[in-house]
Amino acid sequence: MSRKPVVAVVGATGAVGVEMLKCLEKRNFPTSEVRLLASARSVGKKLKFHEQLLTVQELTEKAFDGVDIALFSAGGKISKEFAPKAAQRGVIVVDNSSVFRMDPEVPLVVPEINPEAIGQHHGIIANPNCSTIIGITPLWPIHKVNRITRLIVSTYQAASGAGAAAMRELEESTLAYLRGEAYQPTVLPHPYAFNLFSHNSKIDPANGYNEEEIKMVRETAKIYGDSRIRITATCVRVPVLRAHAESLLFECERPITPEQVRSLLQNAPGVKLVDRVEENYFPMPRDASGQDDILAGRIRQDLSDPSGHSISMFVCGDQLLKGAALNAVQIAERLISASGELLVKPIAAVARQ
Amino acid sequence: MSRKPVVAVVGATGAVGVEMLKCLEKRNFPTSEVRLLASARSVGKKLKFHEQLLTVQELTEKAFDGVDIALFSAGGKISKEFAPKAAQRGVIVVDNSSVFRMDPEVPLVVPEINPEAIGQHHGIIANPNCSTIIGITPLWPIHKVNRITRLIVSTYQAASGAGAAAMRELEESTLAYLRGEAYQPTVLPHPYAFNLFSHNSKIDPANGYNEEEIKMVRETAKIYGDSRIRITATCVRVPVLRAHAESLLFECERPITPEQVRSLLQNAPGVKLVDRVEENYFPMPRDASGQDDILAGRIRQDLSDPSGHSISMFVCGDQLLKGAALNAVQIAERLISASGELLVKPIAAVARQ
Repeated sequence: MSRKPVVAVVGATGAVGVEMLKCLEKRNFPTSEVRLLASARSVGKKLKFHEQLLTVQELTEKAFDGVDIALFSAGGKISKEFAPKAAQRGVIVVDNSSVFRMDPEVPLVVPEINPEAIGQHHGIIANPNCSTIIGITPLWPIHKVNRITRLIVSTYQAASGAGAAAMRELEESTLAYLRGEAYQPTVLPHPYAFNLFSHNSKIDPANGYNEEEIKMVRETAKIYGDSRIRITATCVRVPVLRAHAESLLFECERPITPEQVRSLLQNAPGVKLVDRVEENYFPMPRDASGQDDILAGRIRQDLSDPSGHSISMFVCGDQLLKGAALNAVQIAERLISASGELLVKPIAAVARQ
Repeated sequence: MSRKPVVAVVGATGAVGVEMLKCLEKRNFPTSEVRLLASARSVGKKLKFHEQLLTVQELTEKAFDGVDIALFSAGGKISKEFAPKAAQRGVIVVDNSSVFRMDPEVPLVVPEINPEAIGQHHGIIANPNCSTIIGITPLWPIHKVNRITRLIVSTYQAASGAGAAAMRELEESTLAYLRGEAYQPTVLPHPYAFNLFSHNSKIDPANGYNEEEIKMVRETAKIYGDSRIRITATCVRVPVLRAHAESLLFECERPITPEQVRSLLQNAPGVKLVDRVEENYFPMPRDASGQDDILAGRIRQDLSDPSGHSISMFVCGDQLLKGAALNAVQIAERLISASGELLVKPIAAVARQ
């Protein structure tokens, strides 16, 4: 192939889809065509891309004809139905849903961590869960030199993880609260104005963990290629619009100091150190929103571990960018050469249901 | 003495002071007089107490004449100056500031945990930090039967911890944000609308922990009477009005199960179990606000500790009530008999600077 790829964005009008298009534009992703696909409801909507106005087309199997790379972010149901069909037609799918993430045939990739996994794809590459990406990208430079054996996470997750409608619900319900008006939530299960609540994903009654938490546990082991890492997570939604924060406590194989962590993160790809102790200035959603990098700071020796193997750290990253759209586009970038041509052809188009 | 006590509320017009007065009223605290004291700025303001309208008087040393119990919540500087003076005049001070908490002569009390410490007072009894109370009250029934050896906390703290002005700033800045208007924070150091940030207390450059975190570490050891408990905390302010939430992970001396924890908390004083897994309904600030009890739930075995010694739990409590005013009034209740007379006379009035 000697032309630039045809790229489809599936779920183009959603919170993540819109950011995918912006990332393609901002990063000058080489394309000969960008095709916006969505449900019938959004057909005809127009979105700007460089100098063009692109019209949203209906998502059908046939819409993938001629497409080289498809970025999916239209929910698990759509991915389950259309990603295998697209892959069978020779499209390389980068899928933002959770459907294929734990499939042993599907690479699960954070380009800063395991780019080599991309080469093993069979037509579908999975984009990890946002909380997983934001937590483990800044931990990778540490894990590489001093293996993390245990990780304890508490998240502070933004509305955007539940989509554009949840972001609107946060704003509208907050305005109603400030005006003293009643508000009935329709997107999220609990009042959101000046409130927080346990993540609204399904809970496994066997262990009490919700799906978001289990994703962090399982996806991290797969991306790190380390099945021994012991992880627990508490996932909480807070009234923030689009950046997730996470309080991380990790234990390493050998003793480790905050200075070593700072030094490892100083020039780490995709990470920005924000650890200004003297100013009490650390990672915040307001600063992380709209930023590609994950902010990391509050790096301290864990006072509860006298062995000196544990570190406490606070991170914050844009849920829509590095947590979703940007990571997907970064995966797609690994599929093309410097001159803008597709590098990795699908090894085999694997039929799925 | 055969009369009901004269009670002073110092800092009567602040966020906590107002709640102290409400608690005294709601709990039918026996008083022969309630004296509201505050800085000159607030003198003349009137606050309702039962059927009376009480007028705020200026805080002076002489204003404590005839007072039996004084509830202080006017900041560390006022406590440092006036609490010892009041104690010297025979007043029993219940102080909500951090000034005397770690003083070995001053009991630091959560009535559900160490009421016996009250008897050791020398005129001043300290009310613990809000995050400490809210975190460790639900842990106490567990600690009593299976010692907690390690505690890892991440907090989600409300605006009220920084006072009434911070609550107003959260509301005003959020309204400005929703209207697309600029807003310059004056109370807190960072934008608060749909944002969160590391707790705005002073950081110890030696270890990177802020004062709020160190309070949790030190006060817990004192209240539990257990200097071996190993604690680390990450304290974060979230855009919530008046209830703190905390993600707790604790390790016990012997193995422990979620069922055991639920059973221990089922009828624990000051704690309400909110752990409705099938409905995904757990402790939330909206439910905890205005409630005396600390809500506890999301009780799960820690997936990162295969030994079965660790439990993950999420708690939420009203920062102004159990985190401050209510706890102080509960301490004061232990100073009076069933018939409403003072029980414990000051052992000695100790002069402090």
